Amino acid sequence: MVVSIIGIGLLGGSFALAIREKYPKMRFIGVDTSVVNGQLALAKGIVDDVLPLEEAVAQSTLVVLATPVNIIIDLLPTVLDYLPPGATVLDLGSTKGLICDVADAHPKRAQFVAVHPMAGTENSGPGAAFKELLSGKNLIICDREKSNPDSLTLTESLFRDAGMRLFYMNPQEHDLHLAYVSHLSHISAFALGLTVLEKEKDEQAIFDMASTGFSSTVRLAKSSPAMWAPIFDQNRANVSDALAAYIEFLQQFKQVIDDQDVHTSLDFMQRANVIRRVLDGIEKR
Amino acid sequence: MVVSIIGIGLLGGSFALAIREKYPKMRFIGVDTSVVNGQLALAKGIVDDVLPLEEAVAQSTLVVLATPVNIIIDLLPTVLDYLPPGATVLDLGSTKGLICDVADAHPKRAQFVAVHPMAGTENSGPGAAFKELLSGKNLIICDREKSNPDSLTLTESLFRDAGMRLFYMNPQEHDLHLAYVSHLSHISAFALGLTVLEKEKDEQAIFDMASTGFSSTVRLAKSSPAMWAPIFDQNRANVSDALAAYIEFLQQFKQVIDDQDVHTSLDFMQRANVIRRVLDGIEKR
Repeated sequence: MVVSIIGIGLLGGSFALAIREKYPKMRFIGVDTSVVNGQLALAKGIVDDVLPLEEAVAQSTLVVLATPVNIIIDLLPTVLDYLPPGATVLDLGSTKGLICDVADAHPKRAQFVAVHPMAGTENSGPGAAFKELLSGKNLIICDREKSNPDSLTLTESLFRDAGMRLFYMNPQEHDLHLAYVSHLSHISAFALGLTVLEKEKDEQAIFDMASTGFSSTVRLAKSSPAMWAPIFDQNRANVSDALAAYIEFLQQFKQVIDDQDVHTSLDFMQRANVIRRVLDGIEKR
Repeated sequence: MVVSIIGIGLLGGSFALAIREKYPKMRFIGVDTSVVNGQLALAKGIVDDVLPLEEAVAQSTLVVLATPVNIIIDLLPTVLDYLPPGATVLDLGSTKGLICDVADAHPKRAQFVAVHPMAGTENSGPGAAFKELLSGKNLIICDREKSNPDSLTLTESLFRDAGMRLFYMNPQEHDLHLAYVSHLSHISAFALGLTVLEKEKDEQAIFDMASTGFSSTVRLAKSSPAMWAPIFDQNRANVSDALAAYIEFLQQFKQVIDDQDVHTSLDFMQRANVIRRVLDGIEKR
């Protein structure tokens, strides 16, 4: 069996490393516009070969689209065009609405499976890939009824092999939830990084005074712009709503602090503390 | 030598545990308005006795004020009143301006040392204390020239023993920097928690879909409201400025997303990425 990984970065690379461990004889082909990424992926044992897209797809049983989401939209029709009968293509994108729309418009839609592994780090590229990334995390599969049963079964098996728990929903639900539990976190971290960098011109001061709390909150500001800009763009209606709600809470909080209204300040934080139940659950799983 | 810890929570308890390990014969007295906290601190071996404040202070060589900052302001004059000649009181508060003002107004100012250990977790109470909390972290000492040399030397020695690196600045600089590298992070997390909880009425959905990135960004929303409300209040001018700058960046980001201006979106994130240099340094130290 031959698997092609298109975009050999953190997520595609980690998927390949996890699956290779379970299936040592599966052959992996990498496709990447970056020659360096291809060489790193070969050197790290993520893939056995690096080939041009059409050549890789034409000999694959499974094609994994692991590029930024704007590139997924560009490549998906081409990959479906070249995909052999009986083969499957899946994407690992963090948005699902537009990608599923593109798939729906293609005659070979049933060979496509839309998935989103809820896993990542703030690092990117094949150097950041590691085989444990997906283990214990959640996978969302969208519009499963539109994929043919064999393609769906192959996808489910491989991600279960990688240690993931599977969830099912439609692309609209996916994009709405993700705006709140993922995309908003990233924007809050990017904006926090910008605010602190602008104010604290002396990086040494940040370094000396920052606590582990600051590091934790701003960590996602290290994330890849090339990955996130198209995510925010594709999910902009939901992200814009989430940001509006977040800004509203921040403005209320600021007013409460300006007014020295310690009672309401306490109340805000006590309500926010409810998140502990959710986080403690996430840490335990 | 007798040390009294007033407020036996995460920070006071962790300080006591770290120092006890180095000085097994030092006697520790706990003072706490919560009977349960006192009992937990005794059971955990954080303190040898629990006594009323005046009684504890009157026999101490060192008194550590480790309560929320509003209580530090209330208690500091009383503690100084009861403090024996030659003894020292220090506070561990996250704000320094108002606390130093209160100290400056007292005739025994020179027996006081204003410090802020840049360490903490989102948990509170004596149960959360652990002896490694302070190790490898930074301690800020304010207005050192106002403390008498013996009090300063004792303070510096003990925190170095706990594994901390020492920095010196005035209370105004401290409060300004902290608004950006600590207080703002907490408000951004509290507001993020509120936004997600309000939108995602179904906690199971957050649980199923939240990634480690979300957990990391919102972690500080678990922090103690009783500790943080008075910090925001005492440092409200700086915190309000920091929040205004943060909200402004978020509004710009929202506009850029609404406008589908992917170029500026990329530029924002690339500028925020500079924070990686700072964070990588913090993680290595």
